[in-house]
Amino acid sequence: MPDPQPTAIPAEFDLIARHFRPLAGPGGLGLRDDAAVLMPPAGRELVLTADAMVGGVHFLPDDPPDLIGRKLLRVNLSDLAAKGAVPLAYLMTVSAPKGTPDAWFAGFAAGLAADQAEYGVSLLGGDTTSTPGPLSLSLTMIGHVAPGTAVHRFGAQSGDEIWVTGTIGDGALGLAVAQGRLADSTGHLLGRYRLPRPRVGLAICGIASAGMDVSDGLVQDLGHICRASLLAATLEADAVPLSDAARAAGPDWLATCLTGGDDYEVLLAVAPERTAALRAAAHNAGVPVTRIGQLHAGAATVTVRRADGREMALARGGWSHF
Amino acid sequence: MPDPQPTAIPAEFDLIARHFRPLAGPGGLGLRDDAAVLMPPAGRELVLTADAMVGGVHFLPDDPPDLIGRKLLRVNLSDLAAKGAVPLAYLMTVSAPKGTPDAWFAGFAAGLAADQAEYGVSLLGGDTTSTPGPLSLSLTMIGHVAPGTAVHRFGAQSGDEIWVTGTIGDGALGLAVAQGRLADSTGHLLGRYRLPRPRVGLAICGIASAGMDVSDGLVQDLGHICRASLLAATLEADAVPLSDAARAAGPDWLATCLTGGDDYEVLLAVAPERTAALRAAAHNAGVPVTRIGQLHAGAATVTVRRADGREMALARGGWSHF
Repeated sequence: MPDPQPTAIPAEFDLIARHFRPLAGPGGLGLRDDAAVLMPPAGRELVLTADAMVGGVHFLPDDPPDLIGRKLLRVNLSDLAAKGAVPLAYLMTVSAPKGTPDAWFAGFAAGLAADQAEYGVSLLGGDTTSTPGPLSLSLTMIGHVAPGTAVHRFGAQSGDEIWVTGTIGDGALGLAVAQGRLADSTGHLLGRYRLPRPRVGLAICGIASAGMDVSDGLVQDLGHICRASLLAATLEADAVPLSDAARAAGPDWLATCLTGGDDYEVLLAVAPERTAALRAAAHNAGVPVTRIGQLHAGAATVTVRRADGREMALARGGWSHF
Repeated sequence: MPDPQPTAIPAEFDLIARHFRPLAGPGGLGLRDDAAVLMPPAGRELVLTADAMVGGVHFLPDDPPDLIGRKLLRVNLSDLAAKGAVPLAYLMTVSAPKGTPDAWFAGFAAGLAADQAEYGVSLLGGDTTSTPGPLSLSLTMIGHVAPGTAVHRFGAQSGDEIWVTGTIGDGALGLAVAQGRLADSTGHLLGRYRLPRPRVGLAICGIASAGMDVSDGLVQDLGHICRASLLAATLEADAVPLSDAARAAGPDWLATCLTGGDDYEVLLAVAPERTAALRAAAHNAGVPVTRIGQLHAGAATVTVRRADGREMALARGGWSHF
């Protein structure tokens, strides 16, 4: 949009000032600069993660904008939660189609503001551009841990138990609900798809030998821990915690639960002697945890077994973009 | 793409492993984890910036992929350079259309690798997704300064001189060349449009009272410093340094030079008594610097004057996305 006054504020900066400036934290300088400053917490190691979200891929075009903002924050908070990190601040880029209504930006920022308050993070900076394509969002989240204590995908040991927080499959079933393929009388599934609940505050450093968040399908993500730790896994399908709504969907949906994305729970490898410590940390955080299998020596494969010992065949382990 | 083997590596992760893993630095953990770790340099303050680049907006669809990668790094390095920060590492998200050729990713990564070596930065992590739209890139760059010494848009004082590095307008004229609107016998202009030269290493901390990189048009960007510092500026149009190629384009293109984007030079406010220090820092870095105007008390406006004293009317100050 050509600007008739060379020194007037262009529309792009006006948009940033109105919607995103109120989100800026101390080092964000009111988003009035090209870069933010951040004095890292003394004696702490930073943990950093970045995730992109694209309209039509990671969310549906008519999803409420506040929920899109909150989901963008939460998928990144989930990555930090699985490393045991305390979230601190974030940078964000927004590429939006020209003509995106001002109300959309207002709603998006309101969602970010709500979750900033909930999770104690603030905006450091970023970039707002136009795009001829769908809305494309990217967020880099910065957290911190005591040096050397971050939980990684690697590091699991043979004999470790596999644990998971919360319930699995609700996000994938929620997508099916949004697509009209499944009923959801309570709204629980759709809610879980639209608004992940990252397990921030679960103190797993020093307890879990390996971990990651479940975002691309439980079986596939467990495979990542196997490959990174050079171990095999046996997953007990009937031990995987399901919500009442997921159980109500019936057994035909079990494979979707085990391989669908958007869980944003934490998957952990924990030595048997640390089970009590895990239970205590979970209790303190108010997060349910369930044992769902075991890691053992062998090629990096995931075997999924039913309660009767039969192996469960799955068409795929999870989600791939390409 | 459905994966017939639940524990096989999905195509997305194979792509990351082949092209992006070789770019990962020490804290990037070979991109084998969901988050990176970074021990911040002791006693330093972090400086962070994020920029997005979208196909058809920030680069042309047929631009060579290695140059797209290098430009993505360099636009962010330019932001750090204008703050006086030493670059350290980055996170990146890539949203690419399905069917993007493997050779595109190889070329893109080769460009990143070349510039990582040139600027001493490494990849910490990120995300690769598909998109139904054009290629959408986002990069968060992390650098560091001595605490409290970062140069900001605010902080300029009345009486400060306005200085700029290098030459102005080559990037905007290069875009005109790429669009077939201007001849470029030496290739200089197109080269400057496709490959910015961020002024990393110019030691401006303690010398400049304010600064920013020129990316959206000199006049508009100077207006940002005026608004942030609550000062007026007079820009001497005929003092603005132009390359031989830009001079050859003729006077009709002067307004484009002053208001076009993609310069990636550094614009500084410097007190007259620090001119010698600026010249010394510029000499050490091998970067030309030119005085192009002055800041003075008054409403936050930019007046552009020709050598004969006439005021130059400009249709717009620079680029806005909305």
